[in-house]
Amino acid sequence: MDQKEGRNRVIIENVKPEIDHSEFPIKRVVGDKVDVEADIFCDGHDLLRSELLYKHAGDADWTISGMEKKVNDRWKGSFFVKKQGEYHYTLRAWVDRIDTWNHDIIKKIDAEVDVRSDLAEGIQLIDTVVSAYKTMSPKVRSYLSDVAALFASDKNIREKTVPILNEELYEVLYDYPIRKFITTYPSGLRVRVERKKAAFSSWYEFFPRSLGSGTKIHGTYADCIRHLKYVADMGFDVVYLPPIHPIGESHRKGKNNAVEASPGEPGSPWAIGSAEGGHKSSHKELGTLEEFRELVKNAADHNIEIALDIAFQCSPDHPYVNEHPEWFRHRPDGTIQYAENPPKKYQDIYPFDFESEDWEGLWNELKSIFIFWIGQGVRIFRVDNPHTKSLRFWGWVIDEIHQEHPDIIFLSEAFTRPKVMYHLAKRGFTQSYTYFTWRNSKKELTRYFEELVMTDAREFFRPNLWPNTPDILPQFLQYSGKSGFITRAILAATLSSSYGIYGPAFELMDNISRDEGGEEYHNSEKYEIKDWDVERKNSLRPILKQLNKIRHENQALQNNHSLRFHEIHNENLIAYSKHTDDYSNIILTVVNLDPYHSHSGWIHFKLTDIKMKENDSYQVHDLLGGAYYLWHGDQNYTELNPGVSPAHIFRIRRKIRTEQDFDYFM
Amino acid sequence: MDQKEGRNRVIIENVKPEIDHSEFPIKRVVGDKVDVEADIFCDGHDLLRSELLYKHAGDADWTISGMEKKVNDRWKGSFFVKKQGEYHYTLRAWVDRIDTWNHDIIKKIDAEVDVRSDLAEGIQLIDTVVSAYKTMSPKVRSYLSDVAALFASDKNIREKTVPILNEELYEVLYDYPIRKFITTYPSGLRVRVERKKAAFSSWYEFFPRSLGSGTKIHGTYADCIRHLKYVADMGFDVVYLPPIHPIGESHRKGKNNAVEASPGEPGSPWAIGSAEGGHKSSHKELGTLEEFRELVKNAADHNIEIALDIAFQCSPDHPYVNEHPEWFRHRPDGTIQYAENPPKKYQDIYPFDFESEDWEGLWNELKSIFIFWIGQGVRIFRVDNPHTKSLRFWGWVIDEIHQEHPDIIFLSEAFTRPKVMYHLAKRGFTQSYTYFTWRNSKKELTRYFEELVMTDAREFFRPNLWPNTPDILPQFLQYSGKSGFITRAILAATLSSSYGIYGPAFELMDNISRDEGGEEYHNSEKYEIKDWDVERKNSLRPILKQLNKIRHENQALQNNHSLRFHEIHNENLIAYSKHTDDYSNIILTVVNLDPYHSHSGWIHFKLTDIKMKENDSYQVHDLLGGAYYLWHGDQNYTELNPGVSPAHIFRIRRKIRTEQDFDYFM
Repeated sequence: MDQKEGRNRVIIENVKPEIDHSEFPIKRVVGDKVDVEADIFCDGHDLLRSELLYKHAGDADWTISGMEKKVNDRWKGSFFVKKQGEYHYTLRAWVDRIDTWNHDIIKKIDAEVDVRSDLAEGIQLIDTVVSAYKTMSPKVRSYLSDVAALFASDKNIREKTVPILNEELYEVLYDYPIRKFITTYPSGLRVRVERKKAAFSSWYEFFPRSLGSGTKIHGTYADCIRHLKYVADMGFDVVYLPPIHPIGESHRKGKNNAVEASPGEPGSPWAIGSAEGGHKSSHKELGTLEEFRELVKNAADHNIEIALDIAFQCSPDHPYVNEHPEWFRHRPDGTIQYAENPPKKYQDIYPFDFESEDWEGLWNELKSIFIFWIGQGVRIFRVDNPHTKSLRFWGWVIDEIHQEHPDIIFLSEAFTRPKVMYHLAKRGFTQSYTYFTWRNSKKELTRYFEELVMTDAREFFRPNLWPNTPDILPQFLQYSGKSGFITRAILAATLSSSYGIYGPAFELMDNISRDEGGEEYHNSEKYEIKDWDVERKNSLRPILKQLNKIRHENQALQNNHSLRFHEIHNENLIAYSKHTDDYSNIILTVVNLDPYHSHSGWIHFKLTDIKMKENDSYQVHDLLGGAYYLWHGDQNYTELNPGVSPAHIFRIRRKIRTEQDFDYFM
Repeated sequence: MDQKEGRNRVIIENVKPEIDHSEFPIKRVVGDKVDVEADIFCDGHDLLRSELLYKHAGDADWTISGMEKKVNDRWKGSFFVKKQGEYHYTLRAWVDRIDTWNHDIIKKIDAEVDVRSDLAEGIQLIDTVVSAYKTMSPKVRSYLSDVAALFASDKNIREKTVPILNEELYEVLYDYPIRKFITTYPSGLRVRVERKKAAFSSWYEFFPRSLGSGTKIHGTYADCIRHLKYVADMGFDVVYLPPIHPIGESHRKGKNNAVEASPGEPGSPWAIGSAEGGHKSSHKELGTLEEFRELVKNAADHNIEIALDIAFQCSPDHPYVNEHPEWFRHRPDGTIQYAENPPKKYQDIYPFDFESEDWEGLWNELKSIFIFWIGQGVRIFRVDNPHTKSLRFWGWVIDEIHQEHPDIIFLSEAFTRPKVMYHLAKRGFTQSYTYFTWRNSKKELTRYFEELVMTDAREFFRPNLWPNTPDILPQFLQYSGKSGFITRAILAATLSSSYGIYGPAFELMDNISRDEGGEEYHNSEKYEIKDWDVERKNSLRPILKQLNKIRHENQALQNNHSLRFHEIHNENLIAYSKHTDDYSNIILTVVNLDPYHSHSGWIHFKLTDIKMKENDSYQVHDLLGGAYYLWHGDQNYTELNPGVSPAHIFRIRRKIRTEQDFDYFM
């Protein structure tokens, strides 16, 4: 018998948000609201009461908050998360005898039906409440006693009781619920609450080795410190460095990924480990760990955090290879299996074998690498190719680290199939690289971002948009000129609250690919030291600075859930808005996706969606160009010449003064 | 550590069908196919193998069947359910080392890369298989030994191994899987498998008491037996009788629901229980239990099953009232609370109190009522207002009964809010009354049936469509004349594999409501004995007979999952099709929803959807009117005059003979 307590008549189902029956938590940042909905109903016509309960995992007691009934048996409630770490939430509901009784007696009084028995029932219900709440204030107690006496008095019922029944009594009793035969939602709903930067961050990636003077002198942490001002001035708040560990000698790759490096070539930073050390060591030419910690400290002075690239793979020279041969797969001839994507061979890279007999030892060691760098002051990790390592491992290691260090941010670099990309985010990655890099047309962008912000993905997947990376110079950037670079930067910075660029290749508009049709950079910085002229006049530095300023000054751009696309009858123009929950800040971005030609069109921007009236007049202020426009109603004209600016970023100012605001009007 | 076995690298998620994380089973009937899909993937590029496992709850062992990979990491498999009762199914998957190896070595051979080490690995893999399968046939064993020898032979690799690697070897090894680090889907997926009638049934409701001669003489079970031929001749296979228990005397309702009956009035059969007995007794005027069993037996000879109406409520005279006062709610003055829907009072009805202290006693007694009638030969129950009784009770009682009697069918009469209606179906009701009764326009019908057959509801909710019931004479029928009645019968009989009518009110086209704007029958049979002239010439008997014949002869109409609506550019015409899984039977129904005027339009019926070619010619045979039409391609003209027939029910005959079928062609 499924009847431990068969009298729990209420059903709670179809709870949102909930990820995979609570196998995974939803994600929020400190200060966020969590809106919770569920279908809650019972047999018959009795009225229900529902509560949302929540607490930080570290708290002893639940906080209880009421839920509100909407249409079609859907109930809604919400709470704010105020601390980092894990929150729990659940729902419970029961038949509200008092509300049901109150509702019925009013209908009967209205129909002039005899209600003596109902009043007697009311007295019983009041008695139950009074005896259940011993600590009830004398004032309430005496009020209830008066009401009970009135019910018993047999006086003119309608006149005396209707005002009480219509509002007053239930409002008093609402604070003294009689929770009987409670249904509680069974699965363990959870929220992973992270710091604000998990949701809102502006990343700048550079190779420290190119910061020396010219291509011969290897850059150092000290050079990085000097370079921070340049990055901070543009307004970026995360500096992400490719791996900073010793680079292997065996099979070292040369310029443009040549199979063998010539003497003196620096090799790829992703070929990790040499006699100097492995994942817990610093590449000697960059500097010491002490100097690295100095960089982290200096960055903090510029409001910048240093993000480290963690690539779990080894060069053949990595100490692990000798110390832990059991962590690698061996071929029948006894050699270690290098990375392959047939027919390609990566003899300079040994992947770990997650099916190793000593997989537990491996997991613990990999965790200790994160812990090591956390010890050096790092709080952000960009994880290289997590999709080629055990998915369950990521869930475990991120949970383990978050238990001690809930402020650690993990960015997943998984350019892989959608289900795997999403799953890594479910397992705990804070942010994820996306397919944005290849989404160029209006249809592609609209469809993709609607998937990200309007499906359950919004609850666990935080996109971080990159127009370029050291691995990807997208074809669009190869052919679209300066206007194309600006377009992609604006899209990245306004479509998502987190974005990043690989510089200085981006701001200096490096657009030369190694092969026709390919997306690798020619003379890629992955294999050589570059000499960037960041002070060059023709640089995107000013526009990037302006974009980051707009992002910091407009809270609307610091969330993704409010993103909505708006109709505009021109396939080359895309329009979308974001707003704060209270609509105090509303940003409407219009982008001309065609880097070559001017385009114009009528934007349909439904004013009622942003709590304005259909025929309101309002001001739009282009935060890029600086111009002000007066708009009216839902449809307004816009035109964009990519030679001037490929986009408007409009701040909507809802209220326009009219004569009615003038002191002497009326 | 979430790492009992951290090496299970495969993830299985997003399984369909699955209802509320397997809290509830999906439903099928004997012979049905269950298609199962899931996202199945792992890290990296390794190839996977997935299996679908299933078994009847009574079987010891799982049957294993392979799954096939589709696009975007979606896998599909299926199985057939062959026995009544509960089936279990689950999914498992693992990294297929052999397929991965096979796939990689072919790529390497194609790229002319050295594969000696890979061949050695192949030998190892073959060894693993051979030692794992001791019972392997000598033929296979010797084949594998030859392959291993070839791999070791260092001869011309490409010529000799490619044919083996391309197909042959993997096909042989497919039957000897090495299941290692298996991921099994954790939740307990279930199927409730019922008999065919659960999905395909044609119901006819009548009041036995009106089968006597005239309105003075109470009909009996013997009269019912005589009436069976009339019903069977129309082709119905379920006869559903309103409650057949003793009717209460206290507060008995009179003609047209008058508050007090005059002497001699029969009362409502839903006011159950008198001094004669309660839910386990037969109303004396209908006959004895023995005579009832005789009716059940006679019905079976006509291929008809008797469905009983079970209404869990009591008249004040019901024996339970004295024997079990604790099962009813008492008012403060000590009297029992009668049913109310303020300001309406139903003093002739005492509802059970599902919050009774003795709720377990109540549940067991109610279960025993079903068991009692099962003992009398009843296998179908129509349950009155289940939504006003505890929802968990229904889940329990249906499960309990199905454990002993998996052939029992329960029809839920819950004209209530959608979430509650669906939930009753999840809890186990076989079939459900629906909102069809009030869905008349093309938009309403399309939207509603798409919800029923294209969402998860299709897995647990089986609609039974009623154009009328003793409680509901829909407004449409009040004003639409004979053509309107025919339209509603055709829609019911073709939109759903189960439908029913309340006769003879339906076939005799009773269209008089008690009140203007109301939906109660004038002189409702619920409160009086009626004298129906079923032999009247102007009756829908012939068209109902024809409809049921079409339903029985066309398997396409015996399922709902294949229902699809087709474009037709006239808001008064609706077109939809159903087909068998093998497309051997395809029915296209076109209905003119306007009972007054002729309408015409072009139907867009995508031939590729039914595995025909875009430009095929084909015959359509109107099973209602008898006419044959030759159609061509996707768009064809149709016209319907409601005065002649408001609908076509076309059988599509896919193949038209052409000259190429003629013996001497070519």
